[in-house]
Amino acid sequence: MIKTDILIIGAGPTGLFTVFEAGLLKLKCHLIDALPQPGGQCAEIYPKKPIYDIPAFPEVLAGDLVDNLMKQIKPFQPGFTLGERAQTIDKQEDGSFIVTTNKGTKHHAPVVAIAGGLGSFEPRKPPISNIASYEDKGVEYIIRDPELYRDKNVVIAGGGDSALDWSIFLADVASEVTLVHRRNEFRGALDSVEKVQDLKNQGKIKLITPAEVVEVIGEGAVSGVSIKQGAEVFNKDCDHFIPLFGLAPKLGPIADWGLEIEKNAIKVDNTLDYQTNIPGIYAIGDVNTYPGKLKLILCGFHEATLMCQSAYQRIFPDKRYVMKYTTVGGVTGFDGTKKEAPKAVVKAIE
Amino acid sequence: MIKTDILIIGAGPTGLFTVFEAGLLKLKCHLIDALPQPGGQCAEIYPKKPIYDIPAFPEVLAGDLVDNLMKQIKPFQPGFTLGERAQTIDKQEDGSFIVTTNKGTKHHAPVVAIAGGLGSFEPRKPPISNIASYEDKGVEYIIRDPELYRDKNVVIAGGGDSALDWSIFLADVASEVTLVHRRNEFRGALDSVEKVQDLKNQGKIKLITPAEVVEVIGEGAVSGVSIKQGAEVFNKDCDHFIPLFGLAPKLGPIADWGLEIEKNAIKVDNTLDYQTNIPGIYAIGDVNTYPGKLKLILCGFHEATLMCQSAYQRIFPDKRYVMKYTTVGGVTGFDGTKKEAPKAVVKAIE
Ligand SMILES: Cc1cc2nc3c(=O)[nH]c(=O)nc-3n(C[C@H](O)[C@H](O)[C@H](O)COP(=O)(O)OP(=O)(O)OC[C@H]3O[C@@H](n4cnc5c(N)ncnc54)[C@H](O)[C@@H]3O)c2cc1C
Ligand SMILES: Cc1cc2nc3c(=O)[nH]c(=O)nc-3n(C[C@H](O)[C@H](O)[C@H](O)COP(=O)(O)OP(=O)(O)OC[C@H]3O[C@@H](n4cnc5c(N)ncnc54)[C@H](O)[C@@H]3O)c2cc1C
Repeated sequence: MIKTDILIIGAGPTGLFTVFEAGLLKLKCHLIDALPQPGGQCAEIYPKKPIYDIPAFPEVLAGDLVDNLMKQIKPFQPGFTLGERAQTIDKQEDGSFIVTTNKGTKHHAPVVAIAGGLGSFEPRKPPISNIASYEDKGVEYIIRDPELYRDKNVVIAGGGDSALDWSIFLADVASEVTLVHRRNEFRGALDSVEKVQDLKNQGKIKLITPAEVVEVIGEGAVSGVSIKQGAEVFNKDCDHFIPLFGLAPKLGPIADWGLEIEKNAIKVDNTLDYQTNIPGIYAIGDVNTYPGKLKLILCGFHEATLMCQSAYQRIFPDKRYVMKYTTVGGVTGFDGTKKEAPKAVVKAIE
Repeated sequence: MIKTDILIIGAGPTGLFTVFEAGLLKLKCHLIDALPQPGGQCAEIYPKKPIYDIPAFPEVLAGDLVDNLMKQIKPFQPGFTLGERAQTIDKQEDGSFIVTTNKGTKHHAPVVAIAGGLGSFEPRKPPISNIASYEDKGVEYIIRDPELYRDKNVVIAGGGDSALDWSIFLADVASEVTLVHRRNEFRGALDSVEKVQDLKNQGKIKLITPAEVVEVIGEGAVSGVSIKQGAEVFNKDCDHFIPLFGLAPKLGPIADWGLEIEKNAIKVDNTLDYQTNIPGIYAIGDVNTYPGKLKLILCGFHEATLMCQSAYQRIFPDKRYVMKYTTVGGVTGFDGTKKEAPKAVVKAIE
């Protein structure tokens, strides 16, 4: 059982910044995310694209925003349960909560902050009838650890940035990379498309287009796939089949936690602390809704900050927290680090 | 008469970011500030100190935060009335407002956003009985344009960062710089104190301590000051006397505008758009109050963003604005500039 002060569901920008604001109040955080990496939409959908409306950043790549947040929260040593979906929540007699993931990992905390964005990112699966029985036996929809593919024979399917970028990356790792796409045209960043063209010319990536994988082959684990190109159907040996058709967010199990839902989002009390209808469960960032709500990153930051104050009161009903500016009080990490503004000196001039 | 869409009172971080969010909605802004430079508390009180709780900045100097904001809003060409205090507001028959400064400058806008922080920064004046009659005639409490002092004989009074930093700066501009302080000890950044010690040793700054200016001398304009050191009082010729005893914020005239005030701050409707009790007047950032309010920079950013949406509806009651992410829609400046994320290409690989 993982124990923490604030259990955060969703490691997007909102969830990440929550760790910082909680840390200033000396509260520890643990984050659960269905994705294998932190960053939410920024990391999954548009890491290489610039955002222009983060305050005081005339321009910042979404991926860099996430990196900066990770650096900012580092002193507060957040825990992570990645690649797992928060599935069920059970309120305990003392008012605390136990949240269990789809893989059975249990988390216990007095406060739960749902920063689940548009929902947990789930892979779009291709309509191949027998694919489910090969999941985690050679079929993967998300690449968690590229080392899994070292010196393996890999077939990737898809025509977007993920399929392009992983084909490029694995060309140096796997023994053989084959990319199957149902069109001749790919859709992605210009340099990714050009790089795949290069690697194809060098014989480092095999391209089969326009074509589709129609069946997975293998006894127990994947040993090949069956590919349909025009009227022809042929078999291709491989150790892994990786369909990369994008991830789509689904509010998913959270919708069944007894929270008031409106427009596919969780209703919160925006007059005070972004608490849901269940005391002790807050919802912040894209996942919540209230009159005038804007699904913007900067709004999630503000909501997280106010929410942490309320969580503190809930966890320590008898303590009175006096807010101190970071410039004045500094930042003391749980790892023993201390950042602090240089103090003014008082010195005679002679 | 200066005309604009949103008239912003206060050019602190909140007021500055408002320009950006308004600009995304194609609304023009003009800012009034009592200080000679934008940046509010960050620029006036702690420009060289680090802030640690601006989201995605593990550390940023307050002065750099202001510079970044100025850069971010540049495409939206904000107007500035600096060094003037917003004094009176008059509601027009059509619901718009005319705001007049202490120097008589008039501004006309359908929406007023008060981002006045802790109030307009006003200089702390020394208790010298005849000083008022020399104001702007050789006595200045704020240095607006250092060129005014070129080749002039200047007496500065004070013992903090402003007095130290301006003495250093003017040592290269004025013909003579004398620094008067009532203690031998100065209080400021270490390098400033050391620099003044150096310049004193080189004879570029004259130091008179512990001492006090007790009278201003001159026919119509300043021609000298009278200085008391111990039991002795003597006269010193000079063209300018600059007492730098710091600036203190005062809510000031805004308190008389008929707005609901609580704890020296303006009550707003935080359930929707941070509007005050007078429709069309909003209050955002440190200047407002509501249940759970935190006087933090990041909160001002969120409040400004929601407020601009409401201002848009007020100005264009019949138009429906559909928010577009900056990453997707780009940023089109009023100056003709356009920033935009690189688009995905659709390209065949052969
Ligand atoms: C193309 C694009 C461009 C954008 N441009 C901008 C822009 O310019 N400016 C701007 O402010 N915003 C922009 N946005 C929106 C911005 O990305 C979101 O507002 C932001 O990501 C919300 O952050 P969040 O942390 O609330 O949620 P998210 O980033 O959505 O993160 C939520 C995380 O929670 C996880 N999760 C949800 N449910 C569960 C569960 N049950 N178990 C485990 N994990 C779960 C998800 O997997 C996800 O990683 C853009 C979005 C897109 C798609
Ligand atoms: C030493 C110190 C350290 C701080 N550290 C932090 C920190 O670490 N993190 C953090 O988030 N915050 C910190 N703060 C607080 C932060 O600076 C404020 O929250 C922020 O400046 C508020 O921004 P604002 O734009 O709302 O108001 P302000 O910055 O106060 O700006 C308001 C402006 O309005 C002008 N004004 C007011 N009335 C009038 C009028 N009638 N006419 C003309 N002009 C007017 C004033 O002159 C001023 O320039 C700190 C503050 C101080 C003093």
